[in-house]
Amino acid sequence: MSPSDESSPEQRSRFHVETLAVVGVGLIGGSFALALKQAGCVGRVLGVGRQQQTLEQAQSLGVIDEIATLEQAARESDLVMLAAPVGAFEALFHALSPHLSDKVLITDGGSTKGNVVAAARAALGDRIGQFVPAHPIAGSHESGPQAAFADLYRNRHVVVCPLPENPPSAVTTVSNAWQACGASLVTMTVEQHDDVLAAISHLPHWLASLYVEHVARDANAALNLQLAGAGFGDFSRIAQGSVEMWRDIFMANREGMLRQLDSLHDVLGQARDALEKNDAQWLESVLANAAQVRRDWGRQQDESKS
Amino acid sequence: MSPSDESSPEQRSRFHVETLAVVGVGLIGGSFALALKQAGCVGRVLGVGRQQQTLEQAQSLGVIDEIATLEQAARESDLVMLAAPVGAFEALFHALSPHLSDKVLITDGGSTKGNVVAAARAALGDRIGQFVPAHPIAGSHESGPQAAFADLYRNRHVVVCPLPENPPSAVTTVSNAWQACGASLVTMTVEQHDDVLAAISHLPHWLASLYVEHVARDANAALNLQLAGAGFGDFSRIAQGSVEMWRDIFMANREGMLRQLDSLHDVLGQARDALEKNDAQWLESVLANAAQVRRDWGRQQDESKS
Repeated sequence: MSPSDESSPEQRSRFHVETLAVVGVGLIGGSFALALKQAGCVGRVLGVGRQQQTLEQAQSLGVIDEIATLEQAARESDLVMLAAPVGAFEALFHALSPHLSDKVLITDGGSTKGNVVAAARAALGDRIGQFVPAHPIAGSHESGPQAAFADLYRNRHVVVCPLPENPPSAVTTVSNAWQACGASLVTMTVEQHDDVLAAISHLPHWLASLYVEHVARDANAALNLQLAGAGFGDFSRIAQGSVEMWRDIFMANREGMLRQLDSLHDVLGQARDALEKNDAQWLESVLANAAQVRRDWGRQQDESKS
Repeated sequence: MSPSDESSPEQRSRFHVETLAVVGVGLIGGSFALALKQAGCVGRVLGVGRQQQTLEQAQSLGVIDEIATLEQAARESDLVMLAAPVGAFEALFHALSPHLSDKVLITDGGSTKGNVVAAARAALGDRIGQFVPAHPIAGSHESGPQAAFADLYRNRHVVVCPLPENPPSAVTTVSNAWQACGASLVTMTVEQHDDVLAAISHLPHWLASLYVEHVARDANAALNLQLAGAGFGDFSRIAQGSVEMWRDIFMANREGMLRQLDSLHDVLGQARDALEKNDAQWLESVLANAAQVRRDWGRQQDESKS
């Protein structure tokens, strides 16, 4: 945590955004708007999106106050929150860039950061300091304005990734906005964020999917699937996730994934060598360490919930 | 399935073991004895074990009829079922070997087969044909004679691994015994068995444990564990299993594991290359295949339960 995230309750209570624009008025953007409204921290909320019907629905639900264009958002807002699919960010930055006022800050809810920041740098140029990247670790199986709710971010982690070009005041404002949503902030570099998300979220899906692919390619594939039981079922459950979504996540976080994969493959290679050499002691020590780390983590999760 | 497993109901109803010996009177051996008693297929049951108290408990519970020595079991039984930890098998085969009658058959409940068969060949010599290896895919978190129950093997898979030296009549008798327990038989070679078990049972534990080790060794270990959520928790849950048990399983099935690991590493390497080359199409096709295989498997599991 950087000191800038540790603003005092007084500072936060004084935090106010006159005009907020959310680009994407569904679960992520809509909940951001509702949370700031509930906290009494926002004057008016502009909603920007591609689907007129969705925007009207968001307006009638009170998620946004006015429907706006990207140009209006760039000119009139104090804070723009980008809650579109990560693949759309490059076009959004390019559309916002020519119209950005000096005062407006941008944050986002994208689940990868390296590629988003690269797109922002290319489009925003000298104005890159106005963009403070973020990633709320929160979600739901539901989507759309009707799924948005003010407490989505309450007690959830939000990773803020300040850029070298961000003035401290910009980082403070964006951090205060996320904290006003009830989130618990964690500050990381862009590279750290992508490594950590690759490690804890993307690698499990990668391994589960490739493990199933291996079992299915095996010479004994039919016997494997005939005898597979609950252990196989639990371990491979996540391999059923959306193919397109995970393909896009892996491609979007390609650099972070490659760094993580090379380091994971080192551990896998060491373990294979230990097994080949009958090094039971190495295996036992690694199994014991992994079991301990996982148990400690589980205990901390239980404690933080109680 | 070999034709020898497909004995007709008449053959099975005629199946009878005059004297059965179970070596190990806990969950695995005790349930085998109780199942054959319940099916009316056994005359008397001898129980062999290291702990006198456990044997007496098994006797008072009606799991076994008489307490016996390994020598008595070898001389007096028609069928000996070995239900000891796999690490004890070598000593058991050596102790049984000098006393084996011509008529007695041996089967087992060990969870690995290559190492068990190697130990049997070394100890039994020319009598190796009297051993028909098996592995019941059934268990419980409980152990001891009080945990044994007649239905443990009902509708569960039992892998029978006939050896080239087994006369067909020996395979039929041992298969009939397992079928009389209510089990569904699957016949495999020893090598197939060890590969299939490595694939569906041992690899998930291996990957989950080494994944946690990787996350904990990572430069961002503390951030990883701080941000890890439900996905990490589900994927790594099995890494909390018994360290000693899993170390022994990996060592016992070393050959099967090494074959599986090399083949899995091929798939992992191809996937890494595809990601590095931005080959989204390769990734999508593998993710789609894995998702389909896992969904089909889940559907078949649901159907076989209903």
